Amino acid sequence: MGTTAVIIIDVLNPYEHADAKLLQRAVEKTVGPLADLVRRAHDEPDVQLVYVNDNYGDFAASRDDIEARALKGHRPDLVEPVRPPHGCAFLPKVRHSAFYGTGLDYLLRSNDVTSVVLAGQVTEQCILYSALDAYVRHFDITVARDCVAHIHEDLAEAALRMMERNMSASLVRGQEVFSSGAAGSF
Amino acid sequence: MGTTAVIIIDVLNPYEHADAKLLQRAVEKTVGPLADLVRRAHDEPDVQLVYVNDNYGDFAASRDDIEARALKGHRPDLVEPVRPPHGCAFLPKVRHSAFYGTGLDYLLRSNDVTSVVLAGQVTEQCILYSALDAYVRHFDITVARDCVAHIHEDLAEAALRMMERNMSASLVRGQEVFSSGAAGSF
Amino acid sequence: MGTTAVIIIDVLNPYEHADAKLLQRAVEKTVGPLADLVRRAHDEPDVQLVYVNDNYGDFAASRDDIEARALKGHRPDLVEPVRPPHGCAFLPKVRHSAFYGTGLDYLLRSNDVTSVVLAGQVTEQCILYSALDAYVRHFDITVARDCVAHIHEDLAEAALRMMERNMSASLVRGQEVFSSGAAGSF
Amino acid sequence: MGTTAVIIIDVLNPYEHADAKLLQRAVEKTVGPLADLVRRAHDEPDVQLVYVNDNYGDFAASRDDIEARALKGHRPDLVEPVRPPHGCAFLPKVRHSAFYGTGLDYLLRSNDVTSVVLAGQVTEQCILYSALDAYVRHFDITVARDCVAHIHEDLAEAALRMMERNMSASLVRGQEVFSSGAAGSF
Repeated sequence: MGTTAVIIIDVLNPYEHADAKLLQRAVEKTVGPLADLVRRAHDEPDVQLVYVNDNYGDFAASRDDIEARALKGHRPDLVEPVRPPHGCAFLPKVRHSAFYGTGLDYLLRSNDVTSVVLAGQVTEQCILYSALDAYVRHFDITVARDCVAHIHEDLAEAALRMMERNMSASLVRGQEVFSSGAAGSF
Repeated sequence: MGTTAVIIIDVLNPYEHADAKLLQRAVEKTVGPLADLVRRAHDEPDVQLVYVNDNYGDFAASRDDIEARALKGHRPDLVEPVRPPHGCAFLPKVRHSAFYGTGLDYLLRSNDVTSVVLAGQVTEQCILYSALDAYVRHFDITVARDCVAHIHEDLAEAALRMMERNMSASLVRGQEVFSSGAAGSF
Repeated sequence: MGTTAVIIIDVLNPYEHADAKLLQRAVEKTVGPLADLVRRAHDEPDVQLVYVNDNYGDFAASRDDIEARALKGHRPDLVEPVRPPHGCAFLPKVRHSAFYGTGLDYLLRSNDVTSVVLAGQVTEQCILYSALDAYVRHFDITVARDCVAHIHEDLAEAALRMMERNMSASLVRGQEVFSSGAAGSF
Repeated sequence: MGTTAVIIIDVLNPYEHADAKLLQRAVEKTVGPLADLVRRAHDEPDVQLVYVNDNYGDFAASRDDIEARALKGHRPDLVEPVRPPHGCAFLPKVRHSAFYGTGLDYLLRSNDVTSVVLAGQVTEQCILYSALDAYVRHFDITVARDCVAHIHEDLAEAALRMMERNMSASLVRGQEVFSSGAAGSF
């Protein structure tokens, strides 16, 4: 049947970039549902929880550095609740897609993952691009709708429609993710 | 400085898929400007003209087969004017992005290409996804706005805004592509 | 369980490159067993036969062009017996490995291939490099020992030992490939 | 002209795998020259020093974890002298080649690297496979001969000949790497 991976994208963010203000406003709403999704994914025995996070151009940064910098940034309150649990997979990424220049494809295939649940930010950028790279590789895609944060609402709405219509993604609420009936594969 | 490649995506289409009707309506308007862009790109001495076209799941199909089938499809009038000129590069692709599972990245780098002009179809699918894959690789992107055809207009509009805002793409008319002033690199 | 693909590498060769003389001498011996392997793979119902062949830097060349040029080269007698059967998959490649810049990975995964049989040329170059790329992706590897041709015998011997020792490849005779007992997966 | 990167492969090793004994014997001889090469590469202003190291299947391991485990392994004396200097790039890898499933290609291109110097282990495995992946991407290759360690001497000798003959690699001593005259690109 294949197993499921929950992929948490770019939540370790110091919020110092241009557009960070717009993004924060959205994350204020998603951080709660996302923290809940992370907790439940971590507890679920057959689910692979994977964080994929930008290294922000610093190839010397370790996982701990990336986390520490986010916690020292402008909005530690948006980072603290979604810190990666101890022992969960963590892949630094170098560009927008979680697949580009990372071991994500290898990690998923090694664990017989056939379904991915995407959450994090930014809906109309890294989430959309990662969904595309999952789609061309034939992974089933679920987007936890209340766990993805946008910069521009109009583009985010379009991105969600693209994922649903053109990539056959299921859009569900975070709390539906592991309940029976959602997303087919659970 | 780097050179420019004009990449023509998925114009060899028998128009037999679901949604083909919607697409045809858009292509009826783009086929003229696109044929003109192809002609001019082919004549331009320092421009690399590259066709990248889906093999529609037939890995035994040659370039000639793909072209012949499109010409025998529902709308040869939409294919004939944009047939790849003799001697231009042609890469079969297997999924939506022109970069995925093809030699396009290698071809572009081997020719010192730093700017790509995207044209063809479908704006909110293969064009958008190819733009993304060009963007993560740091190619400058120009989209020939009147030479890209959509299935759904709302998603296409959003896709163009995404490329402009988030991938720094220049949106220009096909006839502006090699005129000075357009797209920085010309 | 997964299925098996037989991958025939670079046998469409005009033999005009440096070292072509050395290669021809080896191919004179392998062309017979290889033609037999191709025929049997083509007839075997559950086996995927795939040709992957260099485009020799010509990105405009179609499958037919590549074949025609090889047949017009120095040694058509080494090409004719191993021409790709009608209807078998054919992927042009751009560099040494059959996986680099091609849709091979996608094709194999789409067909649930878990075992690959490698044949063709050059043992210590494209065969070795393709074996490596198969190995990092966890495909089981079989090399049809009498169906791979070398330029330098000493390097070819080392390449075969590398594949056997470090990539867990099975080295078998071509005629053993689909007999029970060989290569585990048959 | 392009700049040079020195790539140090898999030196953070707890030496607990099968064959570790054979490898240790070789590393006893290479660790000195390699430590010297690392020091000089780190001081050289225009050289990019990059460590690429296996995560040994633990996708939760940070850079610090990988280093700490190697130092707690069987041979800390072979690890301590070649620890990555503070601030140098570090990429975890998932399989043998330093390019597969990593951001190395992206890192090199972003820094206009055209020449790579390879050092570390194992000569006939990760060094050879990384050389191949550098070669298909047209990087100039130098192998610091006394800074690469093998498991099997016969295969290592063949691997070095393959890199020299078929990948146009320069084989030099570590101390020659940044002296004029060696490796063309310095």
